[in-house]
Amino acid sequence: MRVVVTGAAGFIGSNLVDHLLASGHEVTGFDNFSTGQESFLAAAQAQARFRLVRGDLLDPAAIGPAVQGADLVVHLAANADVRFGTDHPRRDLEQNVIATHNVLEAMREGGVKHIAFSSTGSVYGEATVFPTPEDATFPVQTSLYGASKIAAEGLISAYCEGFGFRGTVFRFVSILGHRYTHGHVFDFCKSLRHDPTRLRVLGNGRQRKSYLDVSDCIAAIMTAIEKGDEKYAVYNLGTDEYCEVRDSVGWICARLGVTPALDYTGGDRGWIGDNPFIFLATARIRALGWTPRFSIRQGVERTVDYLMANPDILEARA
Amino acid sequence: MRVVVTGAAGFIGSNLVDHLLASGHEVTGFDNFSTGQESFLAAAQAQARFRLVRGDLLDPAAIGPAVQGADLVVHLAANADVRFGTDHPRRDLEQNVIATHNVLEAMREGGVKHIAFSSTGSVYGEATVFPTPEDATFPVQTSLYGASKIAAEGLISAYCEGFGFRGTVFRFVSILGHRYTHGHVFDFCKSLRHDPTRLRVLGNGRQRKSYLDVSDCIAAIMTAIEKGDEKYAVYNLGTDEYCEVRDSVGWICARLGVTPALDYTGGDRGWIGDNPFIFLATARIRALGWTPRFSIRQGVERTVDYLMANPDILEARA
Repeated sequence: MRVVVTGAAGFIGSNLVDHLLASGHEVTGFDNFSTGQESFLAAAQAQARFRLVRGDLLDPAAIGPAVQGADLVVHLAANADVRFGTDHPRRDLEQNVIATHNVLEAMREGGVKHIAFSSTGSVYGEATVFPTPEDATFPVQTSLYGASKIAAEGLISAYCEGFGFRGTVFRFVSILGHRYTHGHVFDFCKSLRHDPTRLRVLGNGRQRKSYLDVSDCIAAIMTAIEKGDEKYAVYNLGTDEYCEVRDSVGWICARLGVTPALDYTGGDRGWIGDNPFIFLATARIRALGWTPRFSIRQGVERTVDYLMANPDILEARA
Repeated sequence: MRVVVTGAAGFIGSNLVDHLLASGHEVTGFDNFSTGQESFLAAAQAQARFRLVRGDLLDPAAIGPAVQGADLVVHLAANADVRFGTDHPRRDLEQNVIATHNVLEAMREGGVKHIAFSSTGSVYGEATVFPTPEDATFPVQTSLYGASKIAAEGLISAYCEGFGFRGTVFRFVSILGHRYTHGHVFDFCKSLRHDPTRLRVLGNGRQRKSYLDVSDCIAAIMTAIEKGDEKYAVYNLGTDEYCEVRDSVGWICARLGVTPALDYTGGDRGWIGDNPFIFLATARIRALGWTPRFSIRQGVERTVDYLMANPDILEARA
């Protein structure tokens, strides 16, 4: 296949690019390098079947030529920061909604019909059924991030209906692992590296969260692309377990060999719009033959190991 | 109350403006007159408690000053054309999503906290439960219009969670009645006025649709605004019945005293993204004390009467 990956220099994007190249596909990576990292594409750049396009999805003139001739666009580029949406309310709209519109329009104009898209379990808002299935009751959005992702999902499904596209949408739990660059494991490792004697934890530590190792995430994406056959399909991606934030804190500290005093900020949410319980039903993707290899604890530990082995990653961001 | 109505010169907007003024409220009408009609605001313009602001919601500088000091914004301005979304894929994004973002940002900057919003039953896509409740299973969007409205709903709920807004969202069936300017009754009356001997009907005529008279719609909006007390609430608005397209055709022809040959284009959908069955559960708004006064047939007949009495409306649009 000829595959375009937006957000190719990001955490998940660069892992996917490497996987696609290893599987023999031709890959065009598209990235504006606002958060993507050059080093993540170093191995890809050495391969003749890889082409890098630097551009911004808010510029239709950039994405149009990049998708020409593709069989599939995997649209991962996004503002992936769910926590700070209220600090900059236009960012999710631009980077997640308008950018997705521009990708879809570029595909329509170029005759490219299949899009795979990284949505989020946050679209379920505060779900009432756990594990939450893809056809849960109509949710109320509790974050600008979730709202922007559900908007993008709607655009994609409307293009499937209106323009004969095929859409493959993934609602991720939080992804961990190789090249992980932001999130709670990052924040905790960074803090503990600077001061192993204490750790500030948002909320009361009882928030129940789900995680998936990036290698399992990539395997699930490929399974759905290769084995799914619906015009439009949504797949939850996660393990069949969840953990509490304090569990994760314990695993991180044990892996680092530190015993900090824990300072919980309190409350059942870590921030405005935080979901106190995320746990997704994954029967639909499992029915295609996928199963995760790593538990949440293993994913957390692999991430700690990666960050400790790459302190430049840990110190590169504010 | 000091109320801002966007889309004030439109069908529903102008009816709401008149109602608000008659109830003693101060009203700022905002419209870009892209489809709104000056004549619909003639009565309002004669009142001291009414102020008209001409502007476009895609211009943040226009909407910002308009909402200053308001207690409530009723955001009705939209691209309301569900049928031709695929002809201009950016229109729904701009006029329904980005415009709503701009309204919310103007409110946030101006300290205005309550927004009422006109969404649509189209957000249920092809529902599987009838009548469809507000908490139906997570739908797949089948039109760009529905996708843009669900995106706007998500933005509003995220502002409620993130910024302490109150959001009152209405999912309308098709609205009929005084100042109706587009839709199937419009198209049929116009066609029959020019040639009463034949009528072309999209689809097989068996599509099941729901309608509500605009006076009942306005009463429901006011009921929810005045009696609702949730931070964020979604209300379906419709009658407790539906009709087939051919029923509606029959009522229109009977009202006009014509007996055209009917030319059905065939198929169970009138156009791409058409929903073959729309029927909304309205227990939630009824629990606040609202009940519609007019049946679907009465709404259709009132609309035919209005259009026949106002042939300039019928001939003003392509």
